[in-house]
Amino acid sequence: MGEAANSADDDIVTAGFVVIGDEILSGRTKDKNIGYLADFLTAHGIDLAEVRIVPDETGRIVEAVRALSARYTHVFTSGGIGPTHDDITADAIAAAFGVGIDFHPEAVALLSARYGNADLTQARMRMARIPDGASLIPNSVSQAPGFKIGNVHVMAGVPAVFEAMLEALGPTLAHGRLVLSRAIEAHMAEGRVADDLRRIQDAHTGVAIGSYPQYDGKTYSTQLVVRSRDEALLERVVGEIEEALARLRAEA
Amino acid sequence: MGEAANSADDDIVTAGFVVIGDEILSGRTKDKNIGYLADFLTAHGIDLAEVRIVPDETGRIVEAVRALSARYTHVFTSGGIGPTHDDITADAIAAAFGVGIDFHPEAVALLSARYGNADLTQARMRMARIPDGASLIPNSVSQAPGFKIGNVHVMAGVPAVFEAMLEALGPTLAHGRLVLSRAIEAHMAEGRVADDLRRIQDAHTGVAIGSYPQYDGKTYSTQLVVRSRDEALLERVVGEIEEALARLRAEA
Repeated sequence: MGEAANSADDDIVTAGFVVIGDEILSGRTKDKNIGYLADFLTAHGIDLAEVRIVPDETGRIVEAVRALSARYTHVFTSGGIGPTHDDITADAIAAAFGVGIDFHPEAVALLSARYGNADLTQARMRMARIPDGASLIPNSVSQAPGFKIGNVHVMAGVPAVFEAMLEALGPTLAHGRLVLSRAIEAHMAEGRVADDLRRIQDAHTGVAIGSYPQYDGKTYSTQLVVRSRDEALLERVVGEIEEALARLRAEA
Repeated sequence: MGEAANSADDDIVTAGFVVIGDEILSGRTKDKNIGYLADFLTAHGIDLAEVRIVPDETGRIVEAVRALSARYTHVFTSGGIGPTHDDITADAIAAAFGVGIDFHPEAVALLSARYGNADLTQARMRMARIPDGASLIPNSVSQAPGFKIGNVHVMAGVPAVFEAMLEALGPTLAHGRLVLSRAIEAHMAEGRVADDLRRIQDAHTGVAIGSYPQYDGKTYSTQLVVRSRDEALLERVVGEIEEALARLRAEA
C-alpha cells in the first residue's frame, strides 16, 4: 500500500457499507462481501465503521445510504444493479441524492459491445441507467458497470464482480495511515488475563487491545489483538501483555 | 415448525440484528452469526428486516439498539458480553434502556458453579452484571448467560454459544406465519428472463420473485426464488414462471 498521492496522512478515513438484498436477510444467500471489504479497507488504511444490511425496498435503501453518506468518508453498496425487476438500487440512489436517472452513453456502449444489438434486451438496457452526475466504476468480469456519486460507490452483489469493481476503485480512494496490528495467542481463558488487559489498556491511549475467545467444542482459547497507528506504542503494549502472560503462566 | 401457542397467525413478525465487534469491521473475524440467525428466523416465520454491524463503542451500540428496538418485533445482539475490558455490551444495553446494572444472583450462581470460588476472578464476575429488569438466557455451552430486556435479546459472539442461546430462545419467541419459498433454476442469464419476470411480478401481490445471478468464472446462471405466505398463490406463480422459461428455451 504505502503512501499515495491521495493519502490523508494522519487523518482517520472512515467507511460505511450498505448490503442490499432480501436474499441475505432470508438466509438463502450467505454474504461474502462484508469480510472481503473489511480486509480490503484495513489494507488501505480505511476504517470500516458500520455495515447495514437492508431489504430490496427503495425507502430502506435511501435511508441507509443517506445516514452513512453523511457520517463517513466513503460509502460502498453491494447488490441490486442487475437487469431484473428486483434490481432497484440505481433508482434508490438517484432518489437518495435527489437527482434524475437516465441511460448513460458510456454504459450503453459497454453493454452494446458485450451483448450485440440482438441480445441487448430492454431488461439488459436497464443496467445502463445511471443517476445524473455519477461516474462509472468498471466491471472487468461482465461489463455492466457500477457507479460513483458523491461519496457513494455502487457495486454488484455477485462476489466476483464486487471484488473486481473494488480492485478498480482501490487507487482512487482517499485513505489514511495504516492501522498496524499484532496478534498474541494467550494460551489461557480470557477470564484469567482480563484484569491485566484492563490495566494495560487503561494506561495507554492510541492503542486498542481486543480479546477474542475461541471455542473448539471442548476448551476456550484466547487471541489478543493489539491495534495502533503508532508502531513504537504498539510494540511497547505488546511487550507489556507478553510480560503479563508469562507471569500468569508461571503462577499456574 | 408448525403452529405454536405464541404464533401471531397472519401478523408479520419482524426482527433486527445488531452485531457488535471491532473484529468484524476490521476483517480479522469473519461473521458467522448473520447467516445462522437469518436461517433460524426464516424457519420460525420471523422476517429478519435489518442488520447493523457496529464497533465496540457505547454510543454506537445504544443508537443501533434503540433504532431497531423501536422498529421491529424482536431485536438480537451478538458480541461483547465476556469478561474483558472491551466487553461493554451489558452496560450499553442498560444505558439504551435507561436502567441500572448490577450483579444478578442467578448469574452469580451459574458462574460460581462453573468456576468455583477460587477461579471466579473479578473479571469473570463482570459476566454476572445484568441490566435491572432483564431475564437470563441460558448458555448450555459455557454457563455465562445472555439476557433479555424489553424486546432485545443479548447473546454471545462466539458462534457455538450464540447458537446454543438461540436454541434456548426459540420456543419463547412470538412468530408469524411461515414464508414458503420455491427455487427454480432458470438455466439462462437473468437478462433473458427479466421481461417475463417483471410481467409476472406486476400481476401478483402477496408474492416476491427474486432473481439471483451466479457466476462460476465463465458463465452466468440464474436462480429464481418465489416467496409467499400463500401456498396456492406460490404454486400459480411458479407455474407461470416455468411456462415462460419453457417458451424462452424453445425460442433459443
